[in-house]
Amino acid sequence: MRYGVIGTGALGGFYGGILARAGGDVHFLLRSDYEYVRENGLRVDSVMDDFRLPSVNAYASADAMPECDVVIVCLKTTENSRLPDMLRPLLRPGSVILLLQNGLGVEDDLAARLPEAEIAGGLAFICSQKPGPGHIRHLDYGKLDIGSYNVKNTAVLNQVIDDFRAAEVTTELSDDLRLARWRKLVWNVPFNGLTVVMNTTTNCLVAHDSMRRVVLEIMLEVIHGANRCGVGLKESLAQKMVDMTIEMIPYAPSMKLDYDNRRPMEIEYIYSRPVETAADAGFDMPKTAMLESQLRFIESGVKRRNE
Amino acid sequence: MRYGVIGTGALGGFYGGILARAGGDVHFLLRSDYEYVRENGLRVDSVMDDFRLPSVNAYASADAMPECDVVIVCLKTTENSRLPDMLRPLLRPGSVILLLQNGLGVEDDLAARLPEAEIAGGLAFICSQKPGPGHIRHLDYGKLDIGSYNVKNTAVLNQVIDDFRAAEVTTELSDDLRLARWRKLVWNVPFNGLTVVMNTTTNCLVAHDSMRRVVLEIMLEVIHGANRCGVGLKESLAQKMVDMTIEMIPYAPSMKLDYDNRRPMEIEYIYSRPVETAADAGFDMPKTAMLESQLRFIESGVKRRNE
Repeated sequence: MRYGVIGTGALGGFYGGILARAGGDVHFLLRSDYEYVRENGLRVDSVMDDFRLPSVNAYASADAMPECDVVIVCLKTTENSRLPDMLRPLLRPGSVILLLQNGLGVEDDLAARLPEAEIAGGLAFICSQKPGPGHIRHLDYGKLDIGSYNVKNTAVLNQVIDDFRAAEVTTELSDDLRLARWRKLVWNVPFNGLTVVMNTTTNCLVAHDSMRRVVLEIMLEVIHGANRCGVGLKESLAQKMVDMTIEMIPYAPSMKLDYDNRRPMEIEYIYSRPVETAADAGFDMPKTAMLESQLRFIESGVKRRNE
Repeated sequence: MRYGVIGTGALGGFYGGILARAGGDVHFLLRSDYEYVRENGLRVDSVMDDFRLPSVNAYASADAMPECDVVIVCLKTTENSRLPDMLRPLLRPGSVILLLQNGLGVEDDLAARLPEAEIAGGLAFICSQKPGPGHIRHLDYGKLDIGSYNVKNTAVLNQVIDDFRAAEVTTELSDDLRLARWRKLVWNVPFNGLTVVMNTTTNCLVAHDSMRRVVLEIMLEVIHGANRCGVGLKESLAQKMVDMTIEMIPYAPSMKLDYDNRRPMEIEYIYSRPVETAADAGFDMPKTAMLESQLRFIESGVKRRNE
């Protein structure tokens, strides 16, 4: 199996790196880190096990890459408009694209632009960072949930799961990708947006009575929105996720890190698409929609009195 | 008519001062400015007309004040727990208390604690500041809407209106105080809270498409909440108020000024009470309630990662 990795950051560097360490044939597309990684390889400091890959297959352009059996997409969704052009050189009939991205609708949008593509989606439950070029720090967790969107070649998908498991990544095949995506949104929608708007971390949100109630209510909006779209999530999941977050270390979700580092935020797929999808099914998500607007206001950047 | 003014700040200094300038018998309760005003009087710089009152009846304690026909309360609602003790020395049978305060429920709460009191409410549409001790700056507007809550002695209320008009303050007697309060909330609820949470001014909120939509939706929540409570406000009021705000100069509402100056915010009467009142009538105000929680989170002060 030949793997391509598009987006070699905190996510792609970890999952691609761990496949390469296990002997996989992995090809990395890089941008700013290309020169450094071509010279020095990848370094992964992990709670599992630190390792270095002194030499990796590094590319500055997708056009230079070989065709792959599996292309793992670890780009931020804010760059998805560039995705079809980056993917085309890597695809041949039977190739599977695995979108390791947050939010709702990423597979729909890609399928609309690459109608021949076989697509799977994946959700990474991981806490990792990229403190420097070619340097990944894996802090906690790491589980992957993978599900088919329109994959005909299921043998390839099963092989992906076997390969990740052989590389010691806990990996599950979900038979309902929509369920997996909505389930992750139940956590992502309240905590990504509220940590940005309130300029705080998860622990502070759940420690405040009134704010914890808002978190729960937003989670219930997402659960009810999912239900209206035919996705079975239980209301009890909300309280479970709040309790889990109370037990977690103080945490800045990916959107908060993006905001703090002046990168674009993934508002479209984490907020706008769930709100639109639920609205199409006749369900209103007022608190989620308000959070979406607050994030868009912050993102617009024109608006701060003190800036 | 003898007037008492409780809270001689941007509001009480202006309205009390303008009554005194017109020859009224006005007695001012002060706190931090007492020494200065006793020595130097009041100075009012107004878009209408600048004036000075070199000598005013200034008091540091309500116990030292005479009984009054009318007591105008210009305290922030965040200090209302102290109000009954401050009022008692000034009241005699037939005295009227005029609460020039924002929000919903201030008259109910005072009536519960002073069952004998005759209470009126007033809404001040004014832009004024207190740049220094005994110094009021009146920037724009100034209209007063006054309505009875449980006043038996209507002659006194009519005299108040005549006195303000004689002092060149546009003043109207509302025959429906609840309507007047809910109507002002239609503007206050979105703009007070959102300027604090988004750290901005009114003009920036209404200039941003997505945020202007949230402003409108919150206004409609307030209008529908009022309707459910039997208060007749039209939906078209929302768009009118947005259009008016687009035409206004960039404006920081009182809650934003309170927040910027590290004073407590009037969350209880501007947010919690309308949400509770509508809930009691079976109406949910999700966006208003979320804004309330965001403000309470900010007010709690324990929560900022960077503090």
